[in-house]
Amino acid sequence: MGWNRRAFIGATTLAAAGTLAAAQGHGAGDAAAGRRIRRIATEEAFSIPEIYRALAELGKSPSRNLDMILLRTMYTERRGFEKLGDRLLDLDDERIRIMDENGVDMHVLSLTAPGVQMFDTETAVSFAKLANDRLAEAIARHPARYAGLASFAPQDPKRAVKEMERAVRELGLHGFVVNSHTNNEYYDDQKYWPIFEVAEALDRAIYIHPRAPADTMAEPFRDYNMDSAMWGYGIETSTHALRLIMAGVFDRFPKLKIVLGHMGEGIPYWLWRIDYMSAAGVSLGRIKAKLKPSEYFRRNFLITTSGVEDPLVMQYCLEKLGAENIMWAIDYPYQPTEPAVKFMDSVSVPPEVREQIYHRNAERVFHIPEARA
Amino acid sequence: MGWNRRAFIGATTLAAAGTLAAAQGHGAGDAAAGRRIRRIATEEAFSIPEIYRALAELGKSPSRNLDMILLRTMYTERRGFEKLGDRLLDLDDERIRIMDENGVDMHVLSLTAPGVQMFDTETAVSFAKLANDRLAEAIARHPARYAGLASFAPQDPKRAVKEMERAVRELGLHGFVVNSHTNNEYYDDQKYWPIFEVAEALDRAIYIHPRAPADTMAEPFRDYNMDSAMWGYGIETSTHALRLIMAGVFDRFPKLKIVLGHMGEGIPYWLWRIDYMSAAGVSLGRIKAKLKPSEYFRRNFLITTSGVEDPLVMQYCLEKLGAENIMWAIDYPYQPTEPAVKFMDSVSVPPEVREQIYHRNAERVFHIPEARA
Repeated sequence: MGWNRRAFIGATTLAAAGTLAAAQGHGAGDAAAGRRIRRIATEEAFSIPEIYRALAELGKSPSRNLDMILLRTMYTERRGFEKLGDRLLDLDDERIRIMDENGVDMHVLSLTAPGVQMFDTETAVSFAKLANDRLAEAIARHPARYAGLASFAPQDPKRAVKEMERAVRELGLHGFVVNSHTNNEYYDDQKYWPIFEVAEALDRAIYIHPRAPADTMAEPFRDYNMDSAMWGYGIETSTHALRLIMAGVFDRFPKLKIVLGHMGEGIPYWLWRIDYMSAAGVSLGRIKAKLKPSEYFRRNFLITTSGVEDPLVMQYCLEKLGAENIMWAIDYPYQPTEPAVKFMDSVSVPPEVREQIYHRNAERVFHIPEARA
Repeated sequence: MGWNRRAFIGATTLAAAGTLAAAQGHGAGDAAAGRRIRRIATEEAFSIPEIYRALAELGKSPSRNLDMILLRTMYTERRGFEKLGDRLLDLDDERIRIMDENGVDMHVLSLTAPGVQMFDTETAVSFAKLANDRLAEAIARHPARYAGLASFAPQDPKRAVKEMERAVRELGLHGFVVNSHTNNEYYDDQKYWPIFEVAEALDRAIYIHPRAPADTMAEPFRDYNMDSAMWGYGIETSTHALRLIMAGVFDRFPKLKIVLGHMGEGIPYWLWRIDYMSAAGVSLGRIKAKLKPSEYFRRNFLITTSGVEDPLVMQYCLEKLGAENIMWAIDYPYQPTEPAVKFMDSVSVPPEVREQIYHRNAERVFHIPEARA
């Protein structure tokens, strides 16, 4: 998710112009083959009025916490984000129109960052439940257009597990979303492991979405918007993901699937060095993981294209991770839909790889039924 | 620089075996062409007894500072680093033997991290001078085998400037090295800009070498050796480099050259997203830089291959940054020489690109005379 003013404004303009739709028609796919490819976007944000209002209220705090500062800009002062609320709250009108205009079949929806993680435990638990109920209702209204990742409150791992079970078994949701740390704690702490246990047991992936760097690493990110999607988000989230690997989470839960946005938050680039240098940590008894970090990354992680429309990064990740580990995403409403489609339509990959990234991997990982022919 | 026990031990074994030398002979180059390619390694560490002893003394501190903890492991307890001192201090025997055995023509030497940056100002100023004098002496003893990057004490920018001028004008050194932050401060703070001003005026590059994450971002890096070359080094250094870009350092000093090791400390992978998301920071008046971040990165930065022997990363960087922006490095004595040579000998690039990376870029940037034919 990118708190980007120009991008956000851009989304309006492009969608309104509907140029891509005009050029391709609804649901157009692989231009070369003239075939329709299903487009499932996997990191698409929504909110509900109760949570939106509560976050705007939180943003009034004079706290120096980086997420608080972001809330102030986006929700309270709304500088550059005048239309954000409308866009996040809409699940029936403009969103579907923009999807139609750009040939996007499905949004895999998730409650926008920081989710319920900045609220006190009781509020977080009840908001997660409410958000999941509303999400299920939206999917029921538009079953062909939406899938959904359930929220939970890491503040109370026991009740998180209950809500995760309810979200999948009763509401039929497709996976989970969490926004990196909670109260500056990372989930390599074993008190959080019941969350991983139930995700693995339910065979539902957890999308670890960014939030601003934790207070415990905040200072160097305070200037130049370094706390934002430009840099701090990736550092926060990649550091968190590596902590999970090094703690041995994936030895305990070998079938757990974690999804990272933004082309893997930088980790794919570093894998050679992480593997090489992790040997020292193993020797010193500081790293508990049994396999090489890259082995977990290929086995237990998927990445999405959100916010990185760079053909060279795509090529790198295809070679490094394999096509089965990459999913397409837009990051609506923070990033414009048209360039995200254009990127994935035009990036130079074999047709079957384009299908994997556009929909097949999402169908497999999130248990989304294949589209009728 | 990688505080990696196995790698360090590996260096001994491989060098002693001398297998590569046996296979290729001294100075062997492009295998395909059968031509000799000059090999200049650009991130090669040394120390002097006075500084080595002072760092071992510092390592006795019970401080929780991450660099202090590293000093304790490496210099004081010497866990896994039994031979490190001998290797860092030697500039006449084993080092040159290992270079010979692997066909390495030249080490561009730099005082090993954290350099003089953990000492009080007076000590740092005098140690920098001493280290530079010794470095110049070593080069005088082995003029065909060494070039050198001068140290300076950022603790006192005015005296740093003087030492930088002396190091180039009187000692003939080839550039500068600094190990990221000093006392948890980054050099986007304008009080440090005289350092950039003189480097630009002297036309000598500054190699920003990693150190452990600053106290201001230390906490998430405390476990699992995350503070080390495995992860924290790159985060510390890339964050620092981006702060320089965003502060407008390269608008003020458009000809300044910065060198980053470890294939650019992750930044090349992120450039698309950094460019895209920096627009928001510019809109909000928080980013002062006039060009796109990637424009500075291509114009003002070079990267080296130290610690990343990954052909795919090389391919990515060649496409993203161009062959003129990449230099070869070993990271002696922290990483073994033989695989570094093997990597650069075997990576699939045109012969002229191999020459650029192996020596021509280093000759240009560090003002190293071309070898006689």
